[in-house]
Amino acid sequence: MRNLTKESIENIATGASFMGAGGGGNPYIGKLMVLAALEQGGHPITLLDVTEVDPDALYIPVACMGAPSVMMEKFPRGDEFQKVIRALEKHLGKQVKGTFPIEAGGVNSMIPLVLAAQTGLPVVDCDSMGRAFPELQMTTLHLAGVRCAPMVVADEKGNLSVLETVTDKWAELLARDMTVEMGATACVAQYASTGQQLQDGAIHGIVTKCEQIGAIVHDHKLGTQEKRQAIVEVTGGYHLFDGKVVDVIQKVVGGFNRGTIVLEGLNASTGQTMEISYQNENLVAHIDGQLVISVPDLICFTDVDSLVPITTEEVKYGKRMTVFGLPSDDKWRTEAGVDLVGPRYFGFDFDFVTVEELLHERGAK
Amino acid sequence: MRNLTKESIENIATGASFMGAGGGGNPYIGKLMVLAALEQGGHPITLLDVTEVDPDALYIPVACMGAPSVMMEKFPRGDEFQKVIRALEKHLGKQVKGTFPIEAGGVNSMIPLVLAAQTGLPVVDCDSMGRAFPELQMTTLHLAGVRCAPMVVADEKGNLSVLETVTDKWAELLARDMTVEMGATACVAQYASTGQQLQDGAIHGIVTKCEQIGAIVHDHKLGTQEKRQAIVEVTGGYHLFDGKVVDVIQKVVGGFNRGTIVLEGLNASTGQTMEISYQNENLVAHIDGQLVISVPDLICFTDVDSLVPITTEEVKYGKRMTVFGLPSDDKWRTEAGVDLVGPRYFGFDFDFVTVEELLHERGAK
Repeated sequence: MRNLTKESIENIATGASFMGAGGGGNPYIGKLMVLAALEQGGHPITLLDVTEVDPDALYIPVACMGAPSVMMEKFPRGDEFQKVIRALEKHLGKQVKGTFPIEAGGVNSMIPLVLAAQTGLPVVDCDSMGRAFPELQMTTLHLAGVRCAPMVVADEKGNLSVLETVTDKWAELLARDMTVEMGATACVAQYASTGQQLQDGAIHGIVTKCEQIGAIVHDHKLGTQEKRQAIVEVTGGYHLFDGKVVDVIQKVVGGFNRGTIVLEGLNASTGQTMEISYQNENLVAHIDGQLVISVPDLICFTDVDSLVPITTEEVKYGKRMTVFGLPSDDKWRTEAGVDLVGPRYFGFDFDFVTVEELLHERGAK
Repeated sequence: MRNLTKESIENIATGASFMGAGGGGNPYIGKLMVLAALEQGGHPITLLDVTEVDPDALYIPVACMGAPSVMMEKFPRGDEFQKVIRALEKHLGKQVKGTFPIEAGGVNSMIPLVLAAQTGLPVVDCDSMGRAFPELQMTTLHLAGVRCAPMVVADEKGNLSVLETVTDKWAELLARDMTVEMGATACVAQYASTGQQLQDGAIHGIVTKCEQIGAIVHDHKLGTQEKRQAIVEVTGGYHLFDGKVVDVIQKVVGGFNRGTIVLEGLNASTGQTMEISYQNENLVAHIDGQLVISVPDLICFTDVDSLVPITTEEVKYGKRMTVFGLPSDDKWRTEAGVDLVGPRYFGFDFDFVTVEELLHERGAK
């Protein structure tokens, strides 16, 4: 158990942007909300290790749902997070003892911290994706049998819905429609879990991992190559490509950002061309026509010099980026995990192969 | 207070089809559900006059929402009505003392009777439209300040949502999206009202009026002309047109049936051509290019010989129909009423004029 300093929060936000795998929205606005909540006399934010939770107590993640490109312009009011968690608490008839990020990547890394500063609820150092994913049923808690619903969806205008659904996919469908109608973003509380369920089904230590990545990016004593190396070490990932953005096709479809990004290589050592397909998050990448990584493994963008993470909606023509590939959590690399979030779910006609294997094959050629 | 006989239920269903003004769906399936519930050991169905309700008690209408053309093929399971009313009762923390049709026209005339047979709850002899209308905020209870939400939306699969909204229009938007996602039909409980609110804001005696219309249609001792005359008398309406259907343009858009129907006159006395525009319900009618009636006044179709009512989704090329025009309830003929359901709301570029005046103008030429 420890309190998060302002510096920790800055680092977590930066690391969360990296771990968003291009998606989840830029945590910048979320970070400003956390810092504002603290300055406005908020509670200190306590981070609990997963070993420290009460196995029988109730923990509920709060999050923003919808198109991150819209979220950048249509902010939450700020009181929705308390509203959704209190509504779910009331519906369940049980008091909530803490919160956690449903996804460590992107803006949803910050929302539980806003709630914590507003209410004094501790934040558990875990999430349910180890990254960001676009749909509600795409969680390791789902794999562990925890249900998404009952869930609460609310907007900044004061509309609120308590959903009970027969499957997590139905929660996704109904909450997504509501999110689109509410103006392409909404606040949600879902996946109410016991401490025991977090110990069994969540991804542990992910907030701290984000903090470590952010600390590397912000470390002015490190040069570009040292930062790159440190990120590879702390994430267990790979430096895939350095390139300049030469094409971006982006559209908002049904509350999602979708598109393709094309990079032209900056140096021969990583390849000539990289092409990345995304739906909010980066899904699949090819270098010179060869598949090098796919979901659930993570494709993460940073600025080529500063190593500051870049989300898909920030990608523009001419941007010079370094692309990292990270192995996903082992919970995703199961048959059930790959069925839920593997390349076939997103419409690609090939099976999941780990980034390690794909790079090994590429190296072997 | 009286119990409804099987004959009453048959008559109400037929009258409700007429008062649906072309929409609200055919009550036939609803009627079968009521009769089945009674045969399966259901409670006798008690009809309460509005003067007999407890002013402080809670009354909640249950209804089907969505495209009637889909409802004809995708039936409710039958237990959704109890589920939605119990969920709303629980949410409000107050016991429900009775139910009533939110709209007397169409299939929603029957749904409260199904609930009554299943639970023993009495049905109040009132509704909130005096006809059928396509959207949730289009009620006289809305005009009287009763709120649509909290409302419950559920499907036959087991998905259920409790909605709280800032306006009745938001209830319409969010519940409509959910209805479309649930398969174009859903079950809803909304407009929870006190007895006092029904006495002040509902349209009284409408179930009995439907029953009277149905009794005329089913009366084998009456000839066509006598039936037509009796319907005009009991409704205070007009015999507008006799014609053969020569064109129907129908499509399902966003959970609604929309289209245009063209009739060719069967006799010179009522005119050459009638054109009717509808959205679930008939909205506007012209005879020989001249406007003769528009919402909120009622445009009702029947078979030209039997006077059996015809809903818009039953209209086919070659059908020979008699068209009646009925004045709407005075609650609709106010400024607020016309703003809510007048021709301009439905996209027509003219002000509401009563059917009486329009026919007077036509006669004067």
